[in-house]
Amino acid sequence: MADQYAAPASFTGSSTVPALRWEDLPEGPVIVLLDQRRLPTDEVELVCTDVPALIEAIGSLAVRGAPLLGVAGAYGLALAAVRGFDVDEAAEMLVHARPTAVNLSYGVRRALEAYRRALTAGAGADRAAATALEEARTLHREDAEASDRMAAHGLALLQELLPGGGFRLLTHCNTGALVSGGEGTAFAVAGAAHRLGELRRLWVDETRPLLQGARLTAYEAARAGMPYTLLTDNAAGSLFSAGEVDAVVIGADRIAADGSVANKVGSYPLAVLARYHHVPFIVVAPTTTVDLRTAEGAAIEVEQRPGHEVTELPGVGAGVPVAPLGTQAYNPAFDVTPPELVTAIVTENGVVSPVTEAGLAELCDRSRSGNGMMSI
Amino acid sequence: MADQYAAPASFTGSSTVPALRWEDLPEGPVIVLLDQRRLPTDEVELVCTDVPALIEAIGSLAVRGAPLLGVAGAYGLALAAVRGFDVDEAAEMLVHARPTAVNLSYGVRRALEAYRRALTAGAGADRAAATALEEARTLHREDAEASDRMAAHGLALLQELLPGGGFRLLTHCNTGALVSGGEGTAFAVAGAAHRLGELRRLWVDETRPLLQGARLTAYEAARAGMPYTLLTDNAAGSLFSAGEVDAVVIGADRIAADGSVANKVGSYPLAVLARYHHVPFIVVAPTTTVDLRTAEGAAIEVEQRPGHEVTELPGVGAGVPVAPLGTQAYNPAFDVTPPELVTAIVTENGVVSPVTEAGLAELCDRSRSGNGMMSI
Repeated sequence: MADQYAAPASFTGSSTVPALRWEDLPEGPVIVLLDQRRLPTDEVELVCTDVPALIEAIGSLAVRGAPLLGVAGAYGLALAAVRGFDVDEAAEMLVHARPTAVNLSYGVRRALEAYRRALTAGAGADRAAATALEEARTLHREDAEASDRMAAHGLALLQELLPGGGFRLLTHCNTGALVSGGEGTAFAVAGAAHRLGELRRLWVDETRPLLQGARLTAYEAARAGMPYTLLTDNAAGSLFSAGEVDAVVIGADRIAADGSVANKVGSYPLAVLARYHHVPFIVVAPTTTVDLRTAEGAAIEVEQRPGHEVTELPGVGAGVPVAPLGTQAYNPAFDVTPPELVTAIVTENGVVSPVTEAGLAELCDRSRSGNGMMSI
Repeated sequence: MADQYAAPASFTGSSTVPALRWEDLPEGPVIVLLDQRRLPTDEVELVCTDVPALIEAIGSLAVRGAPLLGVAGAYGLALAAVRGFDVDEAAEMLVHARPTAVNLSYGVRRALEAYRRALTAGAGADRAAATALEEARTLHREDAEASDRMAAHGLALLQELLPGGGFRLLTHCNTGALVSGGEGTAFAVAGAAHRLGELRRLWVDETRPLLQGARLTAYEAARAGMPYTLLTDNAAGSLFSAGEVDAVVIGADRIAADGSVANKVGSYPLAVLARYHHVPFIVVAPTTTVDLRTAEGAAIEVEQRPGHEVTELPGVGAGVPVAPLGTQAYNPAFDVTPPELVTAIVTENGVVSPVTEAGLAELCDRSRSGNGMMSI
């Protein structure tokens, strides 16, 4: 059972892009996703009425991006609870939908724990399900607030590192409103600079194989009226050589306790180029992306994706083959950048720079105790 | 007037891939090119009956690759001469068909000088044209011989640098028989290692935007029965991190007198990664690629190609847009790697390592005086 259907997007013409929302339809609650595979040409929403449909959407990257996967996971658990499916089974399936993103299991766990707490406190299944949904909504709202705070911290950091202003920022993959309940992570920093008139250029890596930079970041940059230029991932070296990059700003899919950053494949080469050219390499991610139980980069499981993403180009119907039949492809979804190549990690709680295990733990601690916003 | 037509390839099923040949048809001589834009799916030849048709084929990358462009330029000049067109005008048009490849103007000049020498010596136009054609054939043959010698020198270098054998080589773009009168440059080195049973893996960068790695190198590697794996350009960093690359072997489109190497965009990031990971970065190119009149890397003109190569994917008919309409793209065809990042330059005359201006000049000198094979 995987009940998913497509519907024309209801937000067309608006300047905001709701990547995911919960909707209570007469026939029952659903999770409505913007189908990111079809951007920028088509704005189509995908309506998921059960957890298998949501998992299919996550696996096929119709919905993606570390923070948003956390929100999706929490709503997914709530959907199972509200619709009366097996909640533990739903949790188990959801956390395994993609192996690298730690936020996904974080979101699922938060909703699951809220649900169980309610049951333990004597609530009925309906009341417990409502509590799980409330927790998902809270996570969604927190995520938007975290975006705002990351943007502010990131902008302050840029102003400190590059006092001349007029930033030329290079980014990779997609880290805007499409990955988050709010304005995103790295892209939110560029957005804050843009609103201040301080974004001279956003260099957008196309991000092979799935072209999230070309399809999604360029789409968001165009909507926001930013000065942006698209490039193939391998052309970034020429920009560095020409002195055209003031800083690299990227997101993260998982950050280990030692500050190693797993992010979209192609991030690590940018970190090496940035180091060689003495350009700051800045990672922007909420503390929910930090997995203190993963000690170091080598322990991060990197998802290997199907070879056809590389050997075929997306075409009408089946992909268009670009390599000989039978060609084997190496297609890791992520790579891992060691902390010594990361200038700073910007979170909603502040900045850690240089990146140290203690500094990172301290920032995470603030979420888990201080303001209670991120408590598990 | 640009008279070009497509014909089914006549070599299908053969193990060699003739990228370019001169043919004397009853209706007059033609240059027959394998249309590289249509590989690997279709093996179609393009028949050029005049210089504008050849220039169109060069500009659209139906024929490409530094050494082969030299051969194409020489035959193009001969075609104009034999068919009775204005030879000086043809030379002028041909050398400007692509700005970065120095071999193109080298080939044109060689045929032109042979033509003029014949005229000066009292030959008629027909006899001078035949001399130009003979010179083109000589260049073609020299190119094949240079491939063999580069392969031998390159293999010896690998054996010296990596005494353990079982090489895992990373390559970028396409440098095989499709770019040369012979087996190519960097690819010929991999081929020599393969025939010796010493090629453990050929890692093939797909090489965006035009995917010459996926379309052409994978095609040649498959034909040669090599163990090869395709990857997106940005996944090379992960291979280096994992210790899966023993050496990078690439070609060159132009080498400045100081040893700076202009090659397909994406080469420079590999050089930086190779340096960071202490992996040899080896450039394989005939001495015709060395332009002693270009003093240094900064003086190399880098061709900027149209943005639609990045913003659209090749589809059926018009390209499939992958970025929002109006997206501006940065699309340099080449980048420049400074000599300090190049472990060795392998030519048909031997190897220069470390790369110094004097060492490079000495190797070029051998061509221009010693055996007379490359004399201008």
